[in-house]
Amino acid sequence: MKVLLIGGQGTIGKHIANKLDNHDEVLTVGRSSGDFQADMQDVNSLKDLFEKTGKVDAVVVTAGSAPVKPLRELSPEDFHAGIADKMMGQINVALAAFDQINPGGSITLTTGILAEDPIPNGTILSTVNNAVNGFVIGSYGELIQCNIRINAVSPALVEDSYEALGKYFPGHTPAKMGHVADAYV
Amino acid sequence: MKVLLIGGQGTIGKHIANKLDNHDEVLTVGRSSGDFQADMQDVNSLKDLFEKTGKVDAVVVTAGSAPVKPLRELSPEDFHAGIADKMMGQINVALAAFDQINPGGSITLTTGILAEDPIPNGTILSTVNNAVNGFVIGSYGELIQCNIRINAVSPALVEDSYEALGKYFPGHTPAKMGHVADAYV
Ligand SMILES: NC(=O)c1ccc[n+]([C@@H]2O[C@H](COP(=O)([O-])OP(=O)(O)OC[C@H]3O[C@@H](n4cnc5c(N)ncnc54)[C@H](OP(=O)(O)O)[C@@H]3O)[C@@H](O)[C@H]2O)c1
Ligand SMILES: NC(=O)c1ccc[n+]([C@@H]2O[C@H](COP(=O)([O-])OP(=O)(O)OC[C@H]3O[C@@H](n4cnc5c(N)ncnc54)[C@H](OP(=O)(O)O)[C@@H]3O)[C@@H](O)[C@H]2O)c1
Repeated sequence: MKVLLIGGQGTIGKHIANKLDNHDEVLTVGRSSGDFQADMQDVNSLKDLFEKTGKVDAVVVTAGSAPVKPLRELSPEDFHAGIADKMMGQINVALAAFDQINPGGSITLTTGILAEDPIPNGTILSTVNNAVNGFVIGSYGELIQCNIRINAVSPALVEDSYEALGKYFPGHTPAKMGHVADAYV
Repeated sequence: MKVLLIGGQGTIGKHIANKLDNHDEVLTVGRSSGDFQADMQDVNSLKDLFEKTGKVDAVVVTAGSAPVKPLRELSPEDFHAGIADKMMGQINVALAAFDQINPGGSITLTTGILAEDPIPNGTILSTVNNAVNGFVIGSYGELIQCNIRINAVSPALVEDSYEALGKYFPGHTPAKMGHVADAYV
């Protein structure tokens, strides 16, 4: 399988790349890292990306962030930053991938545990994670008719982020990197 | 209770207004209809609205739409239209209401059955409905600490819309208007 892995050099992405490496051709993408450079916020940059890679069997996104702030301090601009990156960034990838995936191929996006299990200051992540889950629910019927599957993986806080982020996730048990990578496989 | 009902002259809103009428002071809002005019896409228009109404006990939104189109024809602009109205429109209301609700009061937003039960051409509604559900999940902890509750009502296709919209919702049983209004009560 030829797999395009957007965010492939990141905390989660590199474990997926390692897991896939032996069997598959993995092409990693980042704004500055990876085998190819593209910004998923920018539709033209994604068009250029697929022109370079040609058709693929799977597109995986493990990228996208959103501001983390107290609700009372959130502005519409904060929401728009999260919408542009984690929400529309991933939706842009899915829409651009439509005609670039071989029959029977798949799209896999990333949401996260804050979709169901909120933390203080995490409102925008809960919002955009659920938006991406909703995109998957809404689009899968029309995609499957084109012989493309779509899924979202919703990771818990992962082990490699526990030292940096654990204090914001009281009571959360971090997920093992291998288990998270398995979900994408 | 003093209830601000944005969309109060609409298909669903007018049934809520009728149900509340005897016990409560209901102020209806629309862009052109209602007791007060405001556009929830515009943060300043909401600020003006609350200056006119003063503090309220509950804010209810039964407004917000999004483009309905085949997935293959969806552009980022189509998503942004749904984001601006049904998603950020309602989030703008919740953020503006934060300091305008009396202790023990509530915010009630509207999503819809397409959040879980998709139809062809409904991807944007599935996306933005889930975004609003996610906003409620993410924000309720910080709001409850300020003695404000937040909920979303997720109506099925409603009886009064069945003639116009039933053909897009094959196999759906329309919800009775009284039952839908009860959910907001
Ligand atoms: N870490 C966790 O515990 C955790 C838990 C649940 C969910 N998640 C979600 O999982 C995803 C990945 O998380 P992570 O911790 O692996 O993040 P990360 O370590 O920051 O890695 C993100 C990767 O994506 C690339 N990237 C970022 N923005 C991009 C854009 N706009 N266009 C193209 N590439 C972009 C980055 O490379 P460049 O800098 O070169 O662009 C980087 O390689 C995120 O959506 C995150 O919210 C993470
Ligand atoms: N009808 C259904 O079967 C159904 C099912 C599930 C979910 N829903 C959802 O329920 C909500 C209400 O649906 P509905 O059928 O009652 O809609 P509707 O009949 O079109 O009524 C919407 C009302 O909201 C006002 N409005 C629209 N946009 C506004 C804005 N940007 N700012 C302020 N007011 C605005 C309109 O008045 P003006 O024209 O004066 O602005 C109108 O009174 C929508 O979010 C819809 O998606 C509906």
